[in-house]
Amino acid sequence: MKDISDSDLRTNIPLASARPDGRCTPVRVGNVEVGGNAVVVIAGPCAVENDIQVLDIARAVKAAGAAMLRGGAFKPLTFPYRNERMYELGEVGLQYLRAAGDATGLPIVTEVVDVRLVDMVGRYADVVQVGARNMQNVPLLEEVGRVGKPVLLKRHFGASLRDWLGAAEYILHRGNERVILCERGIVAPHTHAPTSRFIVDIQAIPAVREYSHLPVLVDPSHSTFRRRYVAPIARAAIAAGADGLILDVHPDPERAAVDPLQALDYAAFGELMRELRGISSVMGRKL
Amino acid sequence: MKDISDSDLRTNIPLASARPDGRCTPVRVGNVEVGGNAVVVIAGPCAVENDIQVLDIARAVKAAGAAMLRGGAFKPLTFPYRNERMYELGEVGLQYLRAAGDATGLPIVTEVVDVRLVDMVGRYADVVQVGARNMQNVPLLEEVGRVGKPVLLKRHFGASLRDWLGAAEYILHRGNERVILCERGIVAPHTHAPTSRFIVDIQAIPAVREYSHLPVLVDPSHSTFRRRYVAPIARAAIAAGADGLILDVHPDPERAAVDPLQALDYAAFGELMRELRGISSVMGRKL
Amino acid sequence: MKDISDSDLRTNIPLASARPDGRCTPVRVGNVEVGGNAVVVIAGPCAVENDIQVLDIARAVKAAGAAMLRGGAFKPLTFPYRNERMYELGEVGLQYLRAAGDATGLPIVTEVVDVRLVDMVGRYADVVQVGARNMQNVPLLEEVGRVGKPVLLKRHFGASLRDWLGAAEYILHRGNERVILCERGIVAPHTHAPTSRFIVDIQAIPAVREYSHLPVLVDPSHSTFRRRYVAPIARAAIAAGADGLILDVHPDPERAAVDPLQALDYAAFGELMRELRGISSVMGRKL
Amino acid sequence: MKDISDSDLRTNIPLASARPDGRCTPVRVGNVEVGGNAVVVIAGPCAVENDIQVLDIARAVKAAGAAMLRGGAFKPLTFPYRNERMYELGEVGLQYLRAAGDATGLPIVTEVVDVRLVDMVGRYADVVQVGARNMQNVPLLEEVGRVGKPVLLKRHFGASLRDWLGAAEYILHRGNERVILCERGIVAPHTHAPTSRFIVDIQAIPAVREYSHLPVLVDPSHSTFRRRYVAPIARAAIAAGADGLILDVHPDPERAAVDPLQALDYAAFGELMRELRGISSVMGRKL
Repeated sequence: MKDISDSDLRTNIPLASARPDGRCTPVRVGNVEVGGNAVVVIAGPCAVENDIQVLDIARAVKAAGAAMLRGGAFKPLTFPYRNERMYELGEVGLQYLRAAGDATGLPIVTEVVDVRLVDMVGRYADVVQVGARNMQNVPLLEEVGRVGKPVLLKRHFGASLRDWLGAAEYILHRGNERVILCERGIVAPHTHAPTSRFIVDIQAIPAVREYSHLPVLVDPSHSTFRRRYVAPIARAAIAAGADGLILDVHPDPERAAVDPLQALDYAAFGELMRELRGISSVMGRKL
Repeated sequence: MKDISDSDLRTNIPLASARPDGRCTPVRVGNVEVGGNAVVVIAGPCAVENDIQVLDIARAVKAAGAAMLRGGAFKPLTFPYRNERMYELGEVGLQYLRAAGDATGLPIVTEVVDVRLVDMVGRYADVVQVGARNMQNVPLLEEVGRVGKPVLLKRHFGASLRDWLGAAEYILHRGNERVILCERGIVAPHTHAPTSRFIVDIQAIPAVREYSHLPVLVDPSHSTFRRRYVAPIARAAIAAGADGLILDVHPDPERAAVDPLQALDYAAFGELMRELRGISSVMGRKL
Repeated sequence: MKDISDSDLRTNIPLASARPDGRCTPVRVGNVEVGGNAVVVIAGPCAVENDIQVLDIARAVKAAGAAMLRGGAFKPLTFPYRNERMYELGEVGLQYLRAAGDATGLPIVTEVVDVRLVDMVGRYADVVQVGARNMQNVPLLEEVGRVGKPVLLKRHFGASLRDWLGAAEYILHRGNERVILCERGIVAPHTHAPTSRFIVDIQAIPAVREYSHLPVLVDPSHSTFRRRYVAPIARAAIAAGADGLILDVHPDPERAAVDPLQALDYAAFGELMRELRGISSVMGRKL
Repeated sequence: MKDISDSDLRTNIPLASARPDGRCTPVRVGNVEVGGNAVVVIAGPCAVENDIQVLDIARAVKAAGAAMLRGGAFKPLTFPYRNERMYELGEVGLQYLRAAGDATGLPIVTEVVDVRLVDMVGRYADVVQVGARNMQNVPLLEEVGRVGKPVLLKRHFGASLRDWLGAAEYILHRGNERVILCERGIVAPHTHAPTSRFIVDIQAIPAVREYSHLPVLVDPSHSTFRRRYVAPIARAAIAAGADGLILDVHPDPERAAVDPLQALDYAAFGELMRELRGISSVMGRKL
């Protein structure tokens, strides 16, 4: 029943495995610290739709207390024909996101899906995200290991903790010490409600703490795919000890270009932030 | 992807399904209300070992704020030879548990595993528990449907929400309106740490809220099997909106007769209760 | 990753675990041997609907080569209101099944779901079936351990091999040496087609061979829930080394009282039996 | 419960979805046809170790009836430090594999893991394999969609059939009509034996037949990770209707550079081929 053996810890994940003192090594992004005392909330649109939208969202999430801005310019979709692909703005999207980050002072987080675009994405992003579907794309892990920017590494929905820390080790092994883990749901025996394909593995949070010194976030939006589950899972994640969250926020979620079922509107995000502040305080942390 | 269809809700689970106003129907146990404003913590030993032990634990958990006392006198074990079977005290165990409940004023919760013993267990217990392994033992569901005591119905680790609410419907259908649901982990693709076989399905909490008016608890002890995961999962459950918890507590967990790896000692339980009180307050609830 | 440890084998499942010579211990039912050289096919209706139906089916499956007759008189259903409950004929159903067995010389297999009815069912049945949902109903396992008839023990869809062999051990431990295992699908991350909830665990067949001396069958009907998957899974099971199958057969499947989507009609059953005979021959076995 | 909707079939997977006549479209590789009447066995070493080894294996598997030769020159491993990486021979490995293919007349199948190497791998390979971990690496799918060689697309162990056919659609959409699907096991709730992490989803074979016109193979070696399970699963796959297999074969499996627990030696492979020939014949197919 043991997923990670002592031999794995010593031999296979020496850089990612827990330190003797059991503490987390915070990752610094600008003047934000992920994995330190403060809980970090990263928020923004699933997809960058245009320059006005992303700036508006950046201002709103900053006002509510978010520490970083997220937004997708490249997305790995299940099918090749989706209209959403219109909203793969690519480098233009990165420019809009960068401008919104600069205007608000929020560091920006965005996904890279192509090994040939790592340098380009790295020029815009403050944190480069490796998505769940690319968690074991080894050339991509090696390239983001060289890029000089912190990496947010999402867990594949079929991956064990061992697989996940092994992927982190590839990045660390290339000399990039700034790896942030992000749980975003695992495939589960039975879905229990419409459109919810994944189960957030809350136990992964204490498990990462036990086996690794890397900070760990949770993505309640892409895991649950449903707005009404986002706040409960977000609160649960912080209560279980996660170092933060990455959340989809949109001014008019039902008109969001991508994944319209999961984004929070500004009011819901504000209300959630108030609850998270309370829970963080119970945990002896700030937000 | 839809586990519960509208047709299921109308046709198959008319009594368990959500009310038009979306509210929970609290279940009254003595002067405790499960599913009302107050979060309810049920605590006690996995197995009733002797009269002194269970009384000592009852006093300790009451002092820390528990609202009910749990304790096993009958247990369905994986193998027939375990030493633990020495601690299946049966009716004597129920007498000890009853005495401890009476001495402290805590209602008692205990499991029934045999359809022929429902009346006997019902004479001692304030809440009769149906364990995960018997979730679809139909004759047992029908008997506890007649017993006149509230029923705590655990979810089988392989059961969908549809299966679980169907089981609740059997009890309601026999005229027993007082059913309390309890999530205790589901089988998961990969275990991520030694001895943890189940993943607590935190999304089940908002999902039960959406589809049913029954209160829902979480058991962080039997789901995780590991002490260090109990507090994080307990906090996450309350943060996600659960109506309470059922927890293993033992004065000397490593010497517990059954499941020594999962019980909290008094100090850890007291510390957890303080955290839960804070989280409940954030949620606008009492504890 | 080891589900069954050497310590389990020695301490917890001494009676069910593999013999030093690695061979299967056949279970005798009348003049049929399960787990011997011959592959054994058990066939019949999901539910006994009436005396004429079951006799007609018995004759048809015997003519096609079935060695035993199956039929349900008691069924654990997901919800309490289903019309199918009209077809829980109970003891009358057992009488019809017995008569059909006597008329054709086929031993009969039927499920018992209530510990209070084990003796009654045992008076009619040649093989008493414990269904998946009752796999860890300990009092039921203990009663069928005393009943003097062979027991067909289905695997719960959430159970590991360790849980399953532990359940078999309860029966063996009560003195009943004739236990036949039956794989019927496990909960899986993603269903891949309408109405198919379970994945048949074909690897369980060589795994049972490795860890246990008990014969093992597969139920392709209740696992897949879909007619078009039944023949492929049936052939796969025999090719993987299973000792036989238990199959739903009905003269007019779409009008079957229970589970109309999964039964084979006579022609499809006859064609499948021809294929199974060929595969058995490749495996050095008879059918 | 429906994984693939009619809307998906029409809108999202028009090229991969089943034809009106329900038939498979064979994929031609040299003078081998995958998905035609003949069952196709692809065999060879997990990793190409040297020129002599791969030629020796090529001769042995051809003599036993294999139609193509497999061998890895690039492998995505879980951890970055494994000794196995010594056996990532890269382009030299491809040259050895090509030479062995040319000497025996067997088309060669090999994996590409880096989008920047697709053209290079495509110059050597007759079939380009996309491994499970890269099943949703979109840039890689798009590149192999342009490469002019047939593609063997393995299913990710966490992927639904919908995800898998969506990945195939990316390749087809780029103009490459020759896509061969390959099932290689899915994450499962409980492993039932040491080192077996995945459950082969045998039902995926009839499910692919129902929803797609693409041929489908099974990999019993990388799914089960254990030699003793390979032959049972291989036989089951063919009995369930798979168009062929891809198998690890090594002259001295315990000394194989990579995955020593799963390869068959020549004698075991020969014996399995005899059994598969018999089962293919029962299915009305040749081998």
